[in-house]
Amino acid sequence: MPDPNPLAPLRQRLLEFAQARDWLQFHSPKNLSCALVVEAGELLEHFQWLTDEESRHLAPAKREAVAAEMADVFIYLVQLSTAMGVDLVQAAQQKIDLNEQRYPAERARGHNRKYDEL
Amino acid sequence: MPDPNPLAPLRQRLLEFAQARDWLQFHSPKNLSCALVVEAGELLEHFQWLTDEESRHLAPAKREAVAAEMADVFIYLVQLSTAMGVDLVQAAQQKIDLNEQRYPAERARGHNRKYDEL
Amino acid sequence: MPDPNPLAPLRQRLLEFAQARDWLQFHSPKNLSCALVVEAGELLEHFQWLTDEESRHLAPAKREAVAAEMADVFIYLVQLSTAMGVDLVQAAQQKIDLNEQRYPAERARGHNRKYDEL
Amino acid sequence: MPDPNPLAPLRQRLLEFAQARDWLQFHSPKNLSCALVVEAGELLEHFQWLTDEESRHLAPAKREAVAAEMADVFIYLVQLSTAMGVDLVQAAQQKIDLNEQRYPAERARGHNRKYDEL
Repeated sequence: MPDPNPLAPLRQRLLEFAQARDWLQFHSPKNLSCALVVEAGELLEHFQWLTDEESRHLAPAKREAVAAEMADVFIYLVQLSTAMGVDLVQAAQQKIDLNEQRYPAERARGHNRKYDEL
Repeated sequence: MPDPNPLAPLRQRLLEFAQARDWLQFHSPKNLSCALVVEAGELLEHFQWLTDEESRHLAPAKREAVAAEMADVFIYLVQLSTAMGVDLVQAAQQKIDLNEQRYPAERARGHNRKYDEL
Repeated sequence: MPDPNPLAPLRQRLLEFAQARDWLQFHSPKNLSCALVVEAGELLEHFQWLTDEESRHLAPAKREAVAAEMADVFIYLVQLSTAMGVDLVQAAQQKIDLNEQRYPAERARGHNRKYDEL
Repeated sequence: MPDPNPLAPLRQRLLEFAQARDWLQFHSPKNLSCALVVEAGELLEHFQWLTDEESRHLAPAKREAVAAEMADVFIYLVQLSTAMGVDLVQAAQQKIDLNEQRYPAERARGHNRKYDEL
């Protein structure tokens, strides 16, 4: 039987990291959500003046910097999942189930109408 | 040998979802970062007027709504990882390695000084 | 008769600043909205680990840093208002007109129920 | 002598609006910054899947919706300026003074190098 939560090792490591520093006291869902949106902003900062096309072809150093921001977003999201008792992968799978019903492939194909309705 | 990327099944499902709708054309790193920050804002919206303490004790319906927003953030982050060719779990582990050096447990314990320096 | 747009001098100065550097080409509403949300994140960064109460009593240096981030948010908002042809003060007054109807003072008094409905 | 703060009437109206509902208790700088970034995300949502060019030519209904989101961002920014005791226009003018020194027109002309350094 597969591990029910493929992110369990990462969650555990982050929990121990915070516990060793006595930082769980700061990790309310509100604070973690603030931190997540701050990091999401730092991620977007790399792209704010680029065209779509330029954003698809980053120089290696910029790509590394973007990956580091993605890691920060992910870390806060995993810590939030611990604070909330939410299984991220399961929650994502359920959301995709829902989106498959909302946006049938044959009707949604090739235009961004869906996005305007979200 | 364990699967090198525990998120591979989710990545694959999201890729097929987008391909079936011909939506990869919209999934530039810039657009996905925009979408991610928008969803992060929707997540934070649930907490904006709550105290830290209230955010730790959500009613079940609100908790479900928060989990759904976390799923949206995660979905765009995974799609961005595909667009960028970044392994999220590996990037997070490397970032934690770095943070362990930056914030030794014995010095960081119990105050949020670290956070002010970030 | 009073000036219909009290922000006109600031708008004009920002327009000339961008024109002198040939930067209007980058100032699409999409890009300016990205830049605005990035700066809003930098603003929030100062508060992310503070309690509400701590955020009401900042040290002078931190208060200065927060004011500088508020200026950045405002600058992009004013530039966006130029790009969109929107009068910010007028748009705000109209929104307050609407909010006065939505949230009559006698019913909204003293609880944050309104905020949950927004 | 001109009014030292052209936003004073709007600040005053927003202050009275909040006082009449006993909402100032919720208006800590932290909460207002959260609300501001949430609204900035709602603003960006309108543009997230558009090209730069599309964002410059919005249909009238979409333009109205964007203006309403800009108003929300502005309202929270003005309320934050009250909570912090910051004069927004003055802070913006000081920031532009600084940017004129940082990015001399003759060197910054026509490329977005400046943006990458920010």
